Amino acid sequence: MSLSASLLSPYELRQQIRTGSMTHNTSGLCAGYVQGNLCILPEAYANDFLKFCHLNPKPCPIIGMSEKPGDFRLKSLGQDIDLRTDIPQYKLFNHGQAQGQVVNILDHWRDDLVAFVLGCSFSFEEALIADGLEVRNLTQGVNVPMYRTNIACQAAGPFAGNMVVSMRPFKPADAIRAIQICSRFPSVHGAPVHFGDPRAIGIANLEQPDFGDKINLNPGEVPLFWACGVTPQVAVEQAKPPFCITHAPGCMLVTDLPNSTLAIF
Amino acid sequence: MSLSASLLSPYELRQQIRTGSMTHNTSGLCAGYVQGNLCILPEAYANDFLKFCHLNPKPCPIIGMSEKPGDFRLKSLGQDIDLRTDIPQYKLFNHGQAQGQVVNILDHWRDDLVAFVLGCSFSFEEALIADGLEVRNLTQGVNVPMYRTNIACQAAGPFAGNMVVSMRPFKPADAIRAIQICSRFPSVHGAPVHFGDPRAIGIANLEQPDFGDKINLNPGEVPLFWACGVTPQVAVEQAKPPFCITHAPGCMLVTDLPNSTLAIF
Repeated sequence: MSLSASLLSPYELRQQIRTGSMTHNTSGLCAGYVQGNLCILPEAYANDFLKFCHLNPKPCPIIGMSEKPGDFRLKSLGQDIDLRTDIPQYKLFNHGQAQGQVVNILDHWRDDLVAFVLGCSFSFEEALIADGLEVRNLTQGVNVPMYRTNIACQAAGPFAGNMVVSMRPFKPADAIRAIQICSRFPSVHGAPVHFGDPRAIGIANLEQPDFGDKINLNPGEVPLFWACGVTPQVAVEQAKPPFCITHAPGCMLVTDLPNSTLAIF
Repeated sequence: MSLSASLLSPYELRQQIRTGSMTHNTSGLCAGYVQGNLCILPEAYANDFLKFCHLNPKPCPIIGMSEKPGDFRLKSLGQDIDLRTDIPQYKLFNHGQAQGQVVNILDHWRDDLVAFVLGCSFSFEEALIADGLEVRNLTQGVNVPMYRTNIACQAAGPFAGNMVVSMRPFKPADAIRAIQICSRFPSVHGAPVHFGDPRAIGIANLEQPDFGDKINLNPGEVPLFWACGVTPQVAVEQAKPPFCITHAPGCMLVTDLPNSTLAIF
């Protein structure tokens, strides 16, 4: 990633990604703008997926979707977006099995595909940092640790599974502040779903995340657990649609929406 | 307390208290209306107390004060309020020492006295219950447990001391909800100041509250600690003003303000 990439507008960054010259993750780019998770499904699966997201809004907060099958524009999220080219890397799935990564999906697009964009934790992490809180995964320069829980999502058609959560540690007074801040942003996972004892939600060992990296807890800190955007991926794996495309981890759709537009108060 | 007292309007209840026929605590009366802590000080101490409250808004949230020394009306809090008669029982202090309780202060009122009314936890407890949460001290029918902490208040003139906190236990998911709800009500202590390990804020033993009663914690629950309206009483004891009047514990000023008017969003 060039240094100058961090100064680009979301539109400029998407144009650069479109040319294929930027294929890295988007963490830290276009500060202040909403980034989203991508999930593209055949029309036959789209209604059930939409219902799954509606029933499980904390892990699966929809911030944009195709106006009709075949729509790759998502005009509500930004100028001239082309979902086939404007994401640094994509993952392809057949019947729930990963088939590799590509830098565009021009050859894979079909007129029956429906795209969903889901809110992502980058937005609330930015709000936490703006308030002076330390976000440990960012301080340590690693991916946030994520864990499978025993919290069942509400099923919709073939989409089902347990919630995946991300974890960030805070001292209690900072945790209370983090809960307040994140409550303002329900469309990027909102307030945590749990804090404290990991076993209460079926996590055996904080040192062994199911996704992402281990991070350190300091004395006096408690772990806070947020509903995580990996949850819909787990549901897709379970649903085994014949075909599916997602973003590659960390390679998000960078939208034109300022993070502040997601704040409900 | 007569059964009918629970159906009175705040104005009607205050009139009944004024006649001397109701001298009990006001817990559970006039549901939906703000109740307040009372602190009356000589003018010479009023400015420092006001500053103390301003510097420590979580334990000392002012919801009303005399327009000028000698004002016992506090028109902003309700119709025809007379602070000398409309509270079931008062405590008298000389130089910080309790001098006993009286059912009115007509004989103690002076033209140099300034009255302060501070928000009270009854308001947020009602909001928690309305949301379906269990408030343990109410379920057990006892006073909320309160503890002296090592959290120093900001001093103002002779007013100083450590924060007193009240404690209510919740399971983590309910605790997160309680933090959200109470954040809406900054003038009745707002969000908790701590949760979890009591020793982190200087509380040696949850089983031995400094004020109020012990309550039970169930498995999986964590204690949440709120800034408490006993804090200004501790500060007054430390300041040792020659004369001071407060409400007796649980015997509050019942105002005409709906609790909802205190919600900031």
